[in-house]
Amino acid sequence: MMEEFDLIVKGGTIVTASDIYIADIAILNGKICLMGKDLTCSAKKIVDADGKYVLPGGIDVHTHLDMPFGGTVSSDDFATGTIAAACGGTTTVVDFAIQPKDATLAETTEIWQKKAAGKAAVDYGFHIAITDMKDEIMAEIPAIIEAGYSSFKLFMTYEGYRVTDDTLMKALKITKDHGGLVCVHAENYYVIDYLVKKFKAENKIEPIYHALSRPNLAESEAVNRAIAMAELVDAPLYIVHLSCKESLAELKRARDAGFPIMAETCPQYLFLDEDNYREADFNGAKYVMSPPLRKKDSQEPLWLGLAKGDIQAVATDHCPFFMEGQKEMGREFFAKIPNGAPGIETRMPLLFGRGVRDQKLTLTKLVEVTATNPAKIFGMYPKKGTIAVDSDADLVIFDPEKLQTITKSILHEHVDYTPYEGFELKGYPIMTIAAGKIIAEAGSFVGKAGAGKFIKRSAPMIL
Amino acid sequence: MMEEFDLIVKGGTIVTASDIYIADIAILNGKICLMGKDLTCSAKKIVDADGKYVLPGGIDVHTHLDMPFGGTVSSDDFATGTIAAACGGTTTVVDFAIQPKDATLAETTEIWQKKAAGKAAVDYGFHIAITDMKDEIMAEIPAIIEAGYSSFKLFMTYEGYRVTDDTLMKALKITKDHGGLVCVHAENYYVIDYLVKKFKAENKIEPIYHALSRPNLAESEAVNRAIAMAELVDAPLYIVHLSCKESLAELKRARDAGFPIMAETCPQYLFLDEDNYREADFNGAKYVMSPPLRKKDSQEPLWLGLAKGDIQAVATDHCPFFMEGQKEMGREFFAKIPNGAPGIETRMPLLFGRGVRDQKLTLTKLVEVTATNPAKIFGMYPKKGTIAVDSDADLVIFDPEKLQTITKSILHEHVDYTPYEGFELKGYPIMTIAAGKIIAEAGSFVGKAGAGKFIKRSAPMIL
Amino acid sequence: MMEEFDLIVKGGTIVTASDIYIADIAILNGKICLMGKDLTCSAKKIVDADGKYVLPGGIDVHTHLDMPFGGTVSSDDFATGTIAAACGGTTTVVDFAIQPKDATLAETTEIWQKKAAGKAAVDYGFHIAITDMKDEIMAEIPAIIEAGYSSFKLFMTYEGYRVTDDTLMKALKITKDHGGLVCVHAENYYVIDYLVKKFKAENKIEPIYHALSRPNLAESEAVNRAIAMAELVDAPLYIVHLSCKESLAELKRARDAGFPIMAETCPQYLFLDEDNYREADFNGAKYVMSPPLRKKDSQEPLWLGLAKGDIQAVATDHCPFFMEGQKEMGREFFAKIPNGAPGIETRMPLLFGRGVRDQKLTLTKLVEVTATNPAKIFGMYPKKGTIAVDSDADLVIFDPEKLQTITKSILHEHVDYTPYEGFELKGYPIMTIAAGKIIAEAGSFVGKAGAGKFIKRSAPMIL
Amino acid sequence: MMEEFDLIVKGGTIVTASDIYIADIAILNGKICLMGKDLTCSAKKIVDADGKYVLPGGIDVHTHLDMPFGGTVSSDDFATGTIAAACGGTTTVVDFAIQPKDATLAETTEIWQKKAAGKAAVDYGFHIAITDMKDEIMAEIPAIIEAGYSSFKLFMTYEGYRVTDDTLMKALKITKDHGGLVCVHAENYYVIDYLVKKFKAENKIEPIYHALSRPNLAESEAVNRAIAMAELVDAPLYIVHLSCKESLAELKRARDAGFPIMAETCPQYLFLDEDNYREADFNGAKYVMSPPLRKKDSQEPLWLGLAKGDIQAVATDHCPFFMEGQKEMGREFFAKIPNGAPGIETRMPLLFGRGVRDQKLTLTKLVEVTATNPAKIFGMYPKKGTIAVDSDADLVIFDPEKLQTITKSILHEHVDYTPYEGFELKGYPIMTIAAGKIIAEAGSFVGKAGAGKFIKRSAPMIL
Repeated sequence: MMEEFDLIVKGGTIVTASDIYIADIAILNGKICLMGKDLTCSAKKIVDADGKYVLPGGIDVHTHLDMPFGGTVSSDDFATGTIAAACGGTTTVVDFAIQPKDATLAETTEIWQKKAAGKAAVDYGFHIAITDMKDEIMAEIPAIIEAGYSSFKLFMTYEGYRVTDDTLMKALKITKDHGGLVCVHAENYYVIDYLVKKFKAENKIEPIYHALSRPNLAESEAVNRAIAMAELVDAPLYIVHLSCKESLAELKRARDAGFPIMAETCPQYLFLDEDNYREADFNGAKYVMSPPLRKKDSQEPLWLGLAKGDIQAVATDHCPFFMEGQKEMGREFFAKIPNGAPGIETRMPLLFGRGVRDQKLTLTKLVEVTATNPAKIFGMYPKKGTIAVDSDADLVIFDPEKLQTITKSILHEHVDYTPYEGFELKGYPIMTIAAGKIIAEAGSFVGKAGAGKFIKRSAPMIL
Repeated sequence: MMEEFDLIVKGGTIVTASDIYIADIAILNGKICLMGKDLTCSAKKIVDADGKYVLPGGIDVHTHLDMPFGGTVSSDDFATGTIAAACGGTTTVVDFAIQPKDATLAETTEIWQKKAAGKAAVDYGFHIAITDMKDEIMAEIPAIIEAGYSSFKLFMTYEGYRVTDDTLMKALKITKDHGGLVCVHAENYYVIDYLVKKFKAENKIEPIYHALSRPNLAESEAVNRAIAMAELVDAPLYIVHLSCKESLAELKRARDAGFPIMAETCPQYLFLDEDNYREADFNGAKYVMSPPLRKKDSQEPLWLGLAKGDIQAVATDHCPFFMEGQKEMGREFFAKIPNGAPGIETRMPLLFGRGVRDQKLTLTKLVEVTATNPAKIFGMYPKKGTIAVDSDADLVIFDPEKLQTITKSILHEHVDYTPYEGFELKGYPIMTIAAGKIIAEAGSFVGKAGAGKFIKRSAPMIL
Repeated sequence: MMEEFDLIVKGGTIVTASDIYIADIAILNGKICLMGKDLTCSAKKIVDADGKYVLPGGIDVHTHLDMPFGGTVSSDDFATGTIAAACGGTTTVVDFAIQPKDATLAETTEIWQKKAAGKAAVDYGFHIAITDMKDEIMAEIPAIIEAGYSSFKLFMTYEGYRVTDDTLMKALKITKDHGGLVCVHAENYYVIDYLVKKFKAENKIEPIYHALSRPNLAESEAVNRAIAMAELVDAPLYIVHLSCKESLAELKRARDAGFPIMAETCPQYLFLDEDNYREADFNGAKYVMSPPLRKKDSQEPLWLGLAKGDIQAVATDHCPFFMEGQKEMGREFFAKIPNGAPGIETRMPLLFGRGVRDQKLTLTKLVEVTATNPAKIFGMYPKKGTIAVDSDADLVIFDPEKLQTITKSILHEHVDYTPYEGFELKGYPIMTIAAGKIIAEAGSFVGKAGAGKFIKRSAPMIL
Repeated sequence: MMEEFDLIVKGGTIVTASDIYIADIAILNGKICLMGKDLTCSAKKIVDADGKYVLPGGIDVHTHLDMPFGGTVSSDDFATGTIAAACGGTTTVVDFAIQPKDATLAETTEIWQKKAAGKAAVDYGFHIAITDMKDEIMAEIPAIIEAGYSSFKLFMTYEGYRVTDDTLMKALKITKDHGGLVCVHAENYYVIDYLVKKFKAENKIEPIYHALSRPNLAESEAVNRAIAMAELVDAPLYIVHLSCKESLAELKRARDAGFPIMAETCPQYLFLDEDNYREADFNGAKYVMSPPLRKKDSQEPLWLGLAKGDIQAVATDHCPFFMEGQKEMGREFFAKIPNGAPGIETRMPLLFGRGVRDQKLTLTKLVEVTATNPAKIFGMYPKKGTIAVDSDADLVIFDPEKLQTITKSILHEHVDYTPYEGFELKGYPIMTIAAGKIIAEAGSFVGKAGAGKFIKRSAPMIL
């Protein structure tokens, strides 16, 4: 106890997934070392958090940094993207390492490790997105899990990527047998293909047809099917970016019957809706992502799904493309618009400044779905995801009274717009601490690129 | 009124889908001409039906007569099969005309018309089972509907036959637009393929593995998916041989939401169960059909589904193969056992002598699901399916007191076993009248081959 | 066959609960004697029904004629009320004989028999509404059933009438044991009492507060409870005037689980809604009835409930009070407005001219819910409720093309308004035949008072 | 930091409702003062918890100590009962202060305060069980809440106690308006009354008829009704001792629709079942409590309800009566058997040693339902219910490897039997710490009577 701490956060109101209480946090060597009331020990730096909320740093388990897509590349790399994350209160990202054509999974991990190394400002892990599930790729899975990549993503849609149901079953089985977890992008390929061709033939080319070509049923059907496959091989399953009430109903049916099915949703499905696609002057393209934004009537069910624990996590699917030069590739046909939108920096502020403010979710639930559950599900707990003795000192401090209007100019995402332009928030992050160091403060990044470390992840906890 | 009738059925208790009452029925030129109390008109023949039930002749909308399958042919042709039907109280069959490789739909109808012509003892129609859904085949659909083949069957499973979801959508759309109806065989191809290969690899070859390789979920997933496709193109759908409670739950969800989804089940799913596959000495092979027999816990839900109108029809999927020389082809591997079992003759007796007797369904419901609904759904009503003035004089007379034990020797199906051997019934058909002629009496066929006529069917009624 | 018939209805399209076909109907001595194609027999009168629909005469199983209520009396007696019924296509009513204070059930039947005798223009029966369920009253039930009053009504609300749950259980048990059926008015007494007092205290006195004091939950809670009581003593149950989607959900839960629970709804819940209470100048009082009109969002579920068979009957709860002199008693407080509204004459026209026209229900379903099911449930089948040989010749003929706007002046109900003023219909009854006699034609009553007979009813059929 | 602590618990694995991690806990003045890794500060006493689990002390929010019932008194008073609690790892009880006839609520609190003062070995609070809900009693509610009794219990059954629905509504409304919470004992009075009388008349007097006279439906109907009343006045509600799957279904329906309804279940409904009533020699009387034990098929749903968060708490309904001299009062008639059974000492051991062991619930969930949620729901959080800086130092230490067979002789409950005789557990509490003092160790009470303090409770958190 005689030692000098690196940092003490004093007097803040600590929030975990279950608790809210006032305490000081003393940090040494990147770890939470001591928690107490009115600590009098010395420290190199003391942060006064009186009247502020201290939360576990956010964990974003769905990002696409530096990702090739449809002839272009998502506009945030691991440097800019993680700076934005840090400024928004997120201290860990799990990105999707997408298997390039003909690459092995091992090669895939190498490629993505290189993208992040020396660049990432926060800690990072990788899910492996398998795009070519041959037998030899399947055979690599155990070793890849062993190497700390304990989650995989399979696509039920996208030409070239998509897997058939038997492949999904095999992947679920082998992954489960070796202590990993399969994530699926659940949309019905044929439905989308049918509708995209139909709209093209009818010369319906505007962004709104992106949404209309991927109806709720295209997702919920695939969710139902993915769950069935998991049930058939007795494996857990994680559904990424669940977006609509029909899919939630399928999820609930499975969970109520006791099956280990989990899901995330994203802020865009909670705060935006299909009408955004109708914004004039091709501005609807800002929201082109898959699954698309849904009608407003899915929002309340999704909030309730979070509140009741049916949905376990909120991630971003951050995948930014500039309107200029990128999104505009699809001006003549919605299907050519690069799929994706930014969100890595706004997730925590939106959930706090609108979600908590509007009583859609409690503070403890906010922590649960943005940090604790993601850490548990993806094998990073208790190193990450909570505020407890010996956990990583990854923290975000919110000023609950700070009024902030979201606008592109205050954000650090490397892209020329934000889907949340003009959103008024009450409560905003004022400081982010990663591994015991202040990396963002008062809206500016003050950390350093490359400080983030790769996280070897272990087996999932089933929630 | 001065004319002489061909036949008068006197004093019977007439049962329709909604009514039970006593009346005489006078028949002329194959039609019901007059109904009244104590008719005194003259007739060439008078049948005394006092104390007996007079029902509309059964309509079996799911038969496979003279059908090539896996290197052999179903053992009943249109002659033997329709004689068995007649003896069992069924006066109309709708058989599946299966498109042969490279044949057009028009050619398909010709092939099947030839199989039936001059042989069928009762009236018949054809669904067209499309096995190769190319664009030019799709284009034939309107003309085929126009020609009186208003229903089509698509397979979601079976290598070579199965359609992908987009094809299903297209077929649903064009068929609906031209006043036809799509029927699906709903099972997930990939699940079955995965499990069959798995069991083979494990040397699990006995008949019980037929059932285990086609679990309930493989059906209910496909039912959910087929319903989604129908919903997406706003088309009605008819699910053949729905066999388990999980599929029924999907059906009910759709119907409760107001979607025009209909389904049939079969006697085998109501009276037999998975344990039959475990009968010694390869006798389990008798029950190898798809979908397979299910666990007993699906039986009560299916009965309730019929009683409540969620399931609209009971058909047989009659598709007999001899144990000797046919079923035994699969002695070394369950997947080589020809799929199918006899049932055309036992449907009406089982539903009456066990179903009604055991209060599983009422008499009016029996008529509804075996005659009225099939006639309505498949465009044959009111010519067929009821007892009413000007309808075809197709009748079956049941003696409600007749005790009869089912055994192979009393049946006319051309096959060396019945799955219902030893079933004790109370109530049995004692006479079948088709087009005003007695064609079966006291357990013997007394009609003539070739007397049956092709029925040009019109648009479906949605129930 | 040589005899001369009293009446032949020629060439009409006959509609039963399951069938639609063209036939002639020959009537003798009040019964349907013969049905055939192009009958050539002679008759005293021939009605040409070519191009018209011939339906079973309507059966209204929920009327309150000549009923004392809150210091006044419903304004239609058995003379005027049954004339209105006849003009609207209804040929049988089952009225509620309400047990007066201190009267036995036998005395109750006598009182009501006297009200009807010599007055009723159509056949009639009585449910016995028990208002004072003492042990000795309970003991009368078997004899009352034996005497042809096989159904009873119990009130779960209304001071002085209402029964506690144990009484309900006892009544259900004894009634079922003796082949009768219990009907309940299901609303929670305490909820209404609480809200009426609350609104009074707040000086909320207008008609809209009638609706707000009897919320959907007050009904659905009682429906749930009544079903539980029936389940506990293993008895069937019939729920009168089910009015909202929440109650329907309870009903469906019970029926899907196989319990013998049945229900009726009324045209007012299908065609009118809560906003009617807000009509200016106390006109909202026209719609004061219990349960009250509901929000529009219950209408589609109720229609679907009818279509799917969850709701078995449509009755009227006809209970008219003049605006002048009666309804106005509640001008200063909604709870003083006599509860009830007219509807006996408009039920069949509304269901045909709006329900069938707008594809809310099919013609066969219309017959099922207005005639066949009520006859079956209340022990009058097959004498009543269908068009079949030997059934009573009670018929209503609809001209499907006749355009008619409902307005008070064309109706025969003895009351100074109709809730359906201005409703435009396509299809209207042009003739009503009861016991083989034309009693209404072209909008006028042409029968005679007192021609109606008491119907001794037998055990219920469970639907 | 220089001070000497009263106690340090070293090296234990701390479990909260969301977290599991290793840390030392330093305690001063009854509070948790410091948490850290390898604390080196000095302390009066150090407990080595290496390899052990350290949980928040259990909170039992449903006990009946020193309670008059049916002419006798529950056999544990606040001295013996809280000693048993302590030995079983429970450090807080919330007992029911039952309003005596003609007493005010204020008087009621005084009576119960006297029962506990100087006797209770652990902290305690009181719910006020209102048995005579007159207007003047209702008017006392705000002041009683203000005085720290923020929860009330109403009985829907029991002659003399039970409230009608309007009283329930009023109580829900006023309690909610003043920041309190209503708890209900939900069983239908009339159903039970009907069945008890029926069984008595049939001379069915054995303990099993206790269960048969209180069927699942009697509870689930009341649960549905209570929820409806809460919904009608927009108030939260807590359902005590929810015991069966049907009630859970009602609870789930309400929660899924977003209503603030909460519930507890008890160990007896998770571990015992209806068959226990059939134990020979009147031993079935041991399990006579209300609601009764249910069939086994409710157990899995209840466990799943806990796991999924539909049920928020596990309390005991501890209410012991000696077989000798008390239970035997009902030897001649089950309804005379005092209702209640012991359980205060076995709750935590059973949930750990069987529930966690058998993977029915996780360790964090155990903490959540036995401590955190009860503290939050009943206004004691964060003083009670978690392990966090500044919370009361109430802890229970479990040895996860300790094998222990439950038998009466090791327990401290003042009663001559345990319902769990012979239950084999893996994991058992080895030490209980309350307010920083060791009060139980190695199966013996080492604290002192009267050390427990009254807890003034504040407003509920809605979970």
